[in-house]
Amino acid sequence: MKSTDIDTARQRTRDMLASAGIVLTQEESNTIEIADFGLGRLEEEGLEIVVYENNPRYCAKELVMFPRQTCSEHRHPPVGNDPGKTETFRVRKGHVWLYLEGTPTTPIRARVPEVSRSYYTVFHEIELTPGKQYTIPPNTLHWFQAGDDGAIVSEFSSTSRDEFDVFTDPRIRRVG
Amino acid sequence: MKSTDIDTARQRTRDMLASAGIVLTQEESNTIEIADFGLGRLEEEGLEIVVYENNPRYCAKELVMFPRQTCSEHRHPPVGNDPGKTETFRVRKGHVWLYLEGTPTTPIRARVPEVSRSYYTVFHEIELTPGKQYTIPPNTLHWFQAGDDGAIVSEFSSTSRDEFDVFTDPRIRRVG
Repeated sequence: MKSTDIDTARQRTRDMLASAGIVLTQEESNTIEIADFGLGRLEEEGLEIVVYENNPRYCAKELVMFPRQTCSEHRHPPVGNDPGKTETFRVRKGHVWLYLEGTPTTPIRARVPEVSRSYYTVFHEIELTPGKQYTIPPNTLHWFQAGDDGAIVSEFSSTSRDEFDVFTDPRIRRVG
Repeated sequence: MKSTDIDTARQRTRDMLASAGIVLTQEESNTIEIADFGLGRLEEEGLEIVVYENNPRYCAKELVMFPRQTCSEHRHPPVGNDPGKTETFRVRKGHVWLYLEGTPTTPIRARVPEVSRSYYTVFHEIELTPGKQYTIPPNTLHWFQAGDDGAIVSEFSSTSRDEFDVFTDPRIRRVG
């Protein structure tokens, strides 16, 4: 991504967090991760991330999603003795549709990104509104999309090793 | 504690969380833990707790502290193969003074609860304001007190087993 685009996305993320009363340190604010998964369509497929803590026992992040932004389908595979990341998404503000392996919901309420349609394969829908949360077991395919006003999601998890994530879309490059 | 006192403390906790824009489910709201540590002086020594998730890998809670309320000195000891709980406190709103083993700070800014003075033994002060956080290693003595406006603190940690906590004050009974 161009550094000006990263700057713009960071400022938008800061504004969304501030409007939810979430305070960052200066360093966190300066280093918000802007993840477009190497697809170059951040508004459609991507995620904004503040990592509060990631140690060998647990991890905590704040995820910010722009309106209708989608975190592309992926799973957290086993790595060495780790069975894969377990993660809990708790929506703080806005609206999120989460899709998992399981009985497909029809119709789903999210809009699958058109140019990536074939890389979305799981459609069991979970609706998350503020205060609602869901825990995803290790190695389980999932993707999620924010509603029309975007969303702020607290993620609590086992240790995060993003560089090992397996995305369904082979074009995706995830930097750790 | 008397059930009317618990109800009053729960309502006060709900009001503080709502004023910070933190949304609970109805079930979480109904079951906020009011911990007076069996001392019967909740306003002075105690803690209000919402457990979002506690599984065999990690734990996430919201801690609410009334003005100048103190969480009594304790440590999280090893339990079986677990080296003891590691925990990160991130202040969301208000002001917290955290005390740990290490070089004593003089003078400290918290007020040690007078009737329990001998059960406070560590005085290395860390000041936490909104956005600031601190990670406490396992089996490390610590206590903390909110400032004059109370505080809301997100706790991210390894699995929580409160019933094994070791308090310096032998009168304290902690129910898990």
